[in-house]
Amino acid sequence: MLINLSLEEKRKVFDIEVKKHKAFCGMNLSLNMARGKPAPEQLDISNGLLDELNSSIKFTGDDYRNYGILDGIPEMKTLFCDFLNVEKDEIIVNENASLILMYDSLQRAMQFGVLGEKPWNQQGKIKWLCPVPGYDRHFAITELFGIEMINIPMDENGPDMNMVEELAKDPQVKGIWCVPKYSNPSGVVYSDEIVDRFAKLKPAAKDFRIFWDNAYMVHWLYEDDNLLDILAQAKKYGNENIVYIFGSTSKITFAGAGVAFMVASKENIKSLKSLMSIQSIGPNKLVQLAHFKFLKDKDNIQKIMGKHADILRPKFERVLEVLNEELGNSGIATWLNPRGGYFVACNLYPGTAKRTVELSKFAGVIFTDSGATYPYKRDPEDSSLRIAPSFPSYKDLGIAMQVFCNSAKLAYLEKELGQRV
Amino acid sequence: MLINLSLEEKRKVFDIEVKKHKAFCGMNLSLNMARGKPAPEQLDISNGLLDELNSSIKFTGDDYRNYGILDGIPEMKTLFCDFLNVEKDEIIVNENASLILMYDSLQRAMQFGVLGEKPWNQQGKIKWLCPVPGYDRHFAITELFGIEMINIPMDENGPDMNMVEELAKDPQVKGIWCVPKYSNPSGVVYSDEIVDRFAKLKPAAKDFRIFWDNAYMVHWLYEDDNLLDILAQAKKYGNENIVYIFGSTSKITFAGAGVAFMVASKENIKSLKSLMSIQSIGPNKLVQLAHFKFLKDKDNIQKIMGKHADILRPKFERVLEVLNEELGNSGIATWLNPRGGYFVACNLYPGTAKRTVELSKFAGVIFTDSGATYPYKRDPEDSSLRIAPSFPSYKDLGIAMQVFCNSAKLAYLEKELGQRV
Repeated sequence: MLINLSLEEKRKVFDIEVKKHKAFCGMNLSLNMARGKPAPEQLDISNGLLDELNSSIKFTGDDYRNYGILDGIPEMKTLFCDFLNVEKDEIIVNENASLILMYDSLQRAMQFGVLGEKPWNQQGKIKWLCPVPGYDRHFAITELFGIEMINIPMDENGPDMNMVEELAKDPQVKGIWCVPKYSNPSGVVYSDEIVDRFAKLKPAAKDFRIFWDNAYMVHWLYEDDNLLDILAQAKKYGNENIVYIFGSTSKITFAGAGVAFMVASKENIKSLKSLMSIQSIGPNKLVQLAHFKFLKDKDNIQKIMGKHADILRPKFERVLEVLNEELGNSGIATWLNPRGGYFVACNLYPGTAKRTVELSKFAGVIFTDSGATYPYKRDPEDSSLRIAPSFPSYKDLGIAMQVFCNSAKLAYLEKELGQRV
Repeated sequence: MLINLSLEEKRKVFDIEVKKHKAFCGMNLSLNMARGKPAPEQLDISNGLLDELNSSIKFTGDDYRNYGILDGIPEMKTLFCDFLNVEKDEIIVNENASLILMYDSLQRAMQFGVLGEKPWNQQGKIKWLCPVPGYDRHFAITELFGIEMINIPMDENGPDMNMVEELAKDPQVKGIWCVPKYSNPSGVVYSDEIVDRFAKLKPAAKDFRIFWDNAYMVHWLYEDDNLLDILAQAKKYGNENIVYIFGSTSKITFAGAGVAFMVASKENIKSLKSLMSIQSIGPNKLVQLAHFKFLKDKDNIQKIMGKHADILRPKFERVLEVLNEELGNSGIATWLNPRGGYFVACNLYPGTAKRTVELSKFAGVIFTDSGATYPYKRDPEDSSLRIAPSFPSYKDLGIAMQVFCNSAKLAYLEKELGQRV
């Protein structure tokens, strides 16, 4: 184990790794491992969607080219309702971005309040729970609204629920960001016990909402893992207003041109639709129709996801392979083996994450900035990094991960030896 | 003139009109003249748009299927910039709805303030100027935010600018809704003088914004009428931050599946994009690409608008023909002859608009509710009605307008004679 070596042995390793680093720097690499976006081959899977509509289009009922239908076309609602096991008045099908649905839901709560409660804007300092590491765009939203974010540690079962339950006793705490399945970035699937505890959570604030971003609901690498249905579970406890669920086809069809949805209790949806009706006449229904024709049904969605998995699996495995080979017995890094999602989260030796990104950058490989997965971009340990295997080619991944591991070792050794590369 | 008849003569007319009304009621009509939406034949004009993309799609540069590009694809920005005579950092090209852009711009001002000024939410009671009659969805937005709306009378040149300039001296007055070309619903095109006075408006509130909804910018019936370019004009006065301009292809291509844009000064756009970047990763770029391929350039847009005009012109003329025949010399109704847009605004005898809609409804023809074109749905005169000729067939229009005129006469005569149908 690197960590157990004597100082002298570490110095030797350092010299070797410095040489490797210089060799990488000489390769004029220009690779980007920061972006959690699908590769072109994945997007090609859904190109058929673009053949679904053409100029011979005919409408007998509602004309989807025209105005109207605020909450999505019936076909798409039927498909998603079947897929998500919810009813038609529990869903809103919208444009391409669940992010907008989340932002707008939060903005509505700030401006107009939640189900008759005072607007959050008028409730003084409000607070938000943030399981970490998490999704940077979530944290950017709560930060923009001046909401105080509180870190909640995660383990392989999900967030620390004792802490969540304790903090939810504070009426100023209004919500929590969750990515419950193949969590961004750790890949964790929340355990049934965790989901159940969320479903029966009784926060002091009646207007507390769980923002349940099910971004990777079918984004498995091996087989679809089970996530307990939080809305169904909450209904058992008469607590169905506690949760807003978000999702999209962004990583099923096209990342920038999919269809997003929001699921919640009938009461929540009714209230949100009433506000939405002032903002919008309706989403692009032709995009929804093309999606419906292409996706067909839930079995076909799983078939499509199988094709994604066939592209993503080798890439994830390559990342993990290099991590194992290079850092597996080092004692300076830990990671989980994700069974889905878009990321591998790697915990490095405390105080070395930022430097690892920096050294990789010298060698021409961009990783997500250290701290990006924490509220206020502040990782208190400076140890957590996010690796995004999806976009680069399989070949590039190997070399990029070699650079990563080399940089992580150097960052650790620099710290230990008080030397710089 | 109906209005000048003796009471006895009016009684005779009343009896005749009652008989006509009963005949209409016996026809089991079911017509809707309330909806300002394109007819199916108009939507057919753009069906070719659906052939522009197909599964053989290839991208050499940015992959428009993937994430990114917050403010619209370069092709679409180039087209709109050429069309609108603005620069690339003065425009945001978005999803299908200018309404959402307007709502979101107002919500951002409420929550975050305008260019460093205090958020409107924190400025006490704020006020808004509303030229009347106007667009109901505008008024619904300002009403939802609790903004006090002040009616501004319009004539055939636009809003009463003396009143606008006087009221803008109040720092609580933060903006105005304008539909400057083929105004909804009056069809008025703002005169150069009016636009110029807007362009040099110096309100007490530095964060005052003109919400310039150029919804009908090329929606002419005869030939394209000129509207002075407010942004160019405002630049001459160093006052370019005064205006947000909105528009879309909703009534060029597909009403529910077009592309909307927002134009403003570089400083405004930069600030708005910085806030937008937290809400969204980017709009549906494939919809934009299909639009670009279909619309091609500004000359082709005008050709497309010519096809719309060919469908709409006879409908508008039929509406005006019946109005002339039936109410032309009555003294109980006035209207303007619109040269574009989607509506004919009709001013009836005071206190009879609501009853006219009611009587028409008895006869099976739905018109927009009286008051709909006023803030708080309150037309102080109960005289203004909006007629939407676009959606019904030419044949239906004739009979619907017969019913309208019959109802208007009856409503007037009921009032005069103290009788009810």
